[in-house]
This record gives sequence, structure tokens and C-alpha cells, in this order.
Amino acid sequence: MHRSRIGVVLVDHPSETYEAAADFWAAAHGSSRPEKHATAESPYEDLGHLSGAVELAMQRTGAGTPPRVHLDIETDDIEAELARVLALGATLAERHEEYAILHDPGGLVFCIVPVQSRAEFEAGATTWS
Amino acid sequence: MHRSRIGVVLVDHPSETYEAAADFWAAAHGSSRPEKHATAESPYEDLGHLSGAVELAMQRTGAGTPPRVHLDIETDDIEAELARVLALGATLAERHEEYAILHDPGGLVFCIVPVQSRAEFEAGATTWS
Repeated sequence: MHRSRIGVVLVDHPSETYEAAADFWAAAHGSSRPEKHATAESPYEDLGHLSGAVELAMQRTGAGTPPRVHLDIETDDIEAELARVLALGATLAERHEEYAILHDPGGLVFCIVPVQSRAEFEAGATTWS
Repeated sequence: MHRSRIGVVLVDHPSETYEAAADFWAAAHGSSRPEKHATAESPYEDLGHLSGAVELAMQRTGAGTPPRVHLDIETDDIEAELARVLALGATLAERHEEYAILHDPGGLVFCIVPVQSRAEFEAGATTWS
């Protein structure tokens, strides 16, 4: 018998965009970067744990598209959250009626979506003022 | 004031490899796929919540590499977990002394690593027999 769990989500960026992307994700998550930033020799930085249980989902994308993992930020106010992450350095790719597709400062895709799991959202969401 | 959190990790695969990848990730996570599988018109499937608080981390990758997100499976027995996910359809890319880099059935990168957060692991890990 042994044990395991999916326990870490890593956001990978090349050296060219790493600093801007790490600044962005720390602020987007509401945490701080550690004192020692990642280097070529020591390439990891911990941004803390995600709050509330995180949902694992599959998306069936179009034929011929590359496999990938992407993150959804769920929120009770799409417009306010869009304004917050745009101010942090994200760029808007597609604004749909119910959600938005964005790029982080290194071009990585993520989405802003309505609340997906109410109990988990109530338990884990951060209030921004 | 509004609220948000990083609440969903989505594994995206094109139609060609979607079924094999969704089977793999449901089994790797220890959940079941919903009765209705994703289609071109309804492309999402929920595989349940991840157990224990999930760590958010950054990785500084080599110059010119594309940005991406990848998942780490943490385990108390690397060899046993490797055998488990290989039997589920993963393929081994690189075996390092402390960890392994693999591909899921659609070619998506993920890793098997030692326990990263002991308290979270104890609270959230699944026992496989």
C-alpha cells in the first residue's frame, strides 16, 4: 500500500518572463513571493496553498490543439475581478458574456469565471477591497 | 469589495486524445468520470475536488521555453506510484533520483515527486492497495 495525491500546481515560465509572471501570480493569489526568487540553479518558488478545495476538471478542446493545463479564477463579480487582474498585468484575450479568457504577463492562458462551487468558494475566497 | 479564488484546475485535451486522457486523470485522481462525457457542444467534465490544500508554485524554466502549467503528484512511495500511473497509461519521460517526469496519454507533462507538504499530504492523500 502507498499513498499519493495531486498536490502541487506549478506555473512554469521561461527566464524572459519569469519575474513578471511570478509577481502577477503571487498578487493574483493574494500571497507574497519568498525572499529568494527562483534562479537557473534553484528554479522553484512557493506561493502558498490555494484556499478551499480545488476542483479538477477536463476540457475537450478542438481537434489538433495542444494538450495543456489552465487555471480558472472563480469570482462573485466578473467585472471587478477583470479590473483587478488587468491592473496586475494580465491582458484580455476574449470577453464572453459569462466569463473571460486572459493571458498572464508571459502569455499563459487563464480564465475568470463565475462561482463554480458555492461551499468551496465561501470557505476559500479572498475579499479584495 | 468583491471576492475571488483560484478554484479550478482544468486539463485540456483535443478530441483525438480526450477520452484516454480523461480516463487517465479520473483514475489517477481516484474519482470517476461523470455519466455524460464531454462533447464538442458540452466540453467540460468535473472529476471532483482535489483533497487537502493544493500548493501553488512557480518554476523558472529555460530561456525560450513556452509558458505552461503542470501538475505534481506527491507520494510516499515514488516507485509504487510510478507503477500505478504507468499501468493507467502514462509514459515515463525522465527518471531522476528524487522524482520522475511523465506524459499522460495525450502527451501532457506531469511529475511524480516526494511529499511536499506533510500536513496537507496526511490530510488529503489517497491510499492505493
